[in-house]
Amino acid sequence: MDRLRKHIEEITPVSDEEFEHVKTFFTLKRIKKHQYLIQEGEQVNFEYLILSGIFRMFYLDHEGKEYIVQFAGENWWMADYQAYFNEKKASLHITCMEDAEILCLTLYGREKLSSDLHKMEHFFRVKLTKGYTAQQRRIISLLSSSPQQRYEEFGQLYPHMMQKIPKKYIAEYLGVSRETLSRLYSNNKGK
Amino acid sequence: MDRLRKHIEEITPVSDEEFEHVKTFFTLKRIKKHQYLIQEGEQVNFEYLILSGIFRMFYLDHEGKEYIVQFAGENWWMADYQAYFNEKKASLHITCMEDAEILCLTLYGREKLSSDLHKMEHFFRVKLTKGYTAQQRRIISLLSSSPQQRYEEFGQLYPHMMQKIPKKYIAEYLGVSRETLSRLYSNNKGK
Repeated sequence: MDRLRKHIEEITPVSDEEFEHVKTFFTLKRIKKHQYLIQEGEQVNFEYLILSGIFRMFYLDHEGKEYIVQFAGENWWMADYQAYFNEKKASLHITCMEDAEILCLTLYGREKLSSDLHKMEHFFRVKLTKGYTAQQRRIISLLSSSPQQRYEEFGQLYPHMMQKIPKKYIAEYLGVSRETLSRLYSNNKGK
Repeated sequence: MDRLRKHIEEITPVSDEEFEHVKTFFTLKRIKKHQYLIQEGEQVNFEYLILSGIFRMFYLDHEGKEYIVQFAGENWWMADYQAYFNEKKASLHITCMEDAEILCLTLYGREKLSSDLHKMEHFFRVKLTKGYTAQQRRIISLLSSSPQQRYEEFGQLYPHMMQKIPKKYIAEYLGVSRETLSRLYSNNKGK
């Protein structure tokens, strides 16, 4: 739980007593590469803070085609938030791409912590602010950018993921074909 | 300012004394149809709560092509949040599509209110939560849906906007041609 405290204290300091309270709401879970964390149609009871590992969250259409909404790595929060906040069933899948440790938090826990401690409400607000701006950037990128621009932006924002994630999935995330991605990789190496 | 209080109290009750403090951070602005609220390259000092009117927020590429990120109507919050939260210059444009009244809030004001009043931090967190889930839905829709699905989803989510906004802009928002949109309108009328 030391890592949780460090993560929270990047936003706001918490006392020992406060942290004792905070940590009671989190449960640790270990998950192996290729395991699903959640699948479409399942009840979404948790959001997750990733301590280690990499995940991908995706939507599957009725023909089985996969659309990647998000990758998530260390210190990222992740959930099918439409389902989580509305206590509904998942419309997305989350799968583990690298052995992982995660902390699980229920919606009740999130709301209770926010209500009990102004600091934790602040913490969650700041995290949402960052998530919201990242999503606004992704929407603009999806609407307007060329594959080349999207590729370069992804590499700049997430160099660690660019190295660790198989090209197949990066192509899917960027909405380009494998061939286009290979061409972009080659062009970039030449620079 | 009565409308601001009503808007806040949809999330959390506030006392007269608290509201007296809250309202000092907001300034009212009237804006006419076709006026720009913000343009690319300008310093972003405010976010806006829309009391009346409709706005569209868009990105212009270097060839002058417009990509609509968002429409916003009564009781919506709106800003170029990447710029607002990072105190940077706008990369988006916001323009008024129907005479409007808005309330303006600085980042300092938002943070001060959140710090002074746990209730207001809660209010902003709840609003961000709703915005975040709406964006996650839009990303999935952009990635995976057919024009027909996007059209139907937009009509279900925002029937009021569907009626008020010129078709040209709805087509842009959905990422379809005018011709495709006209076909979707006709198909739908036949149902």
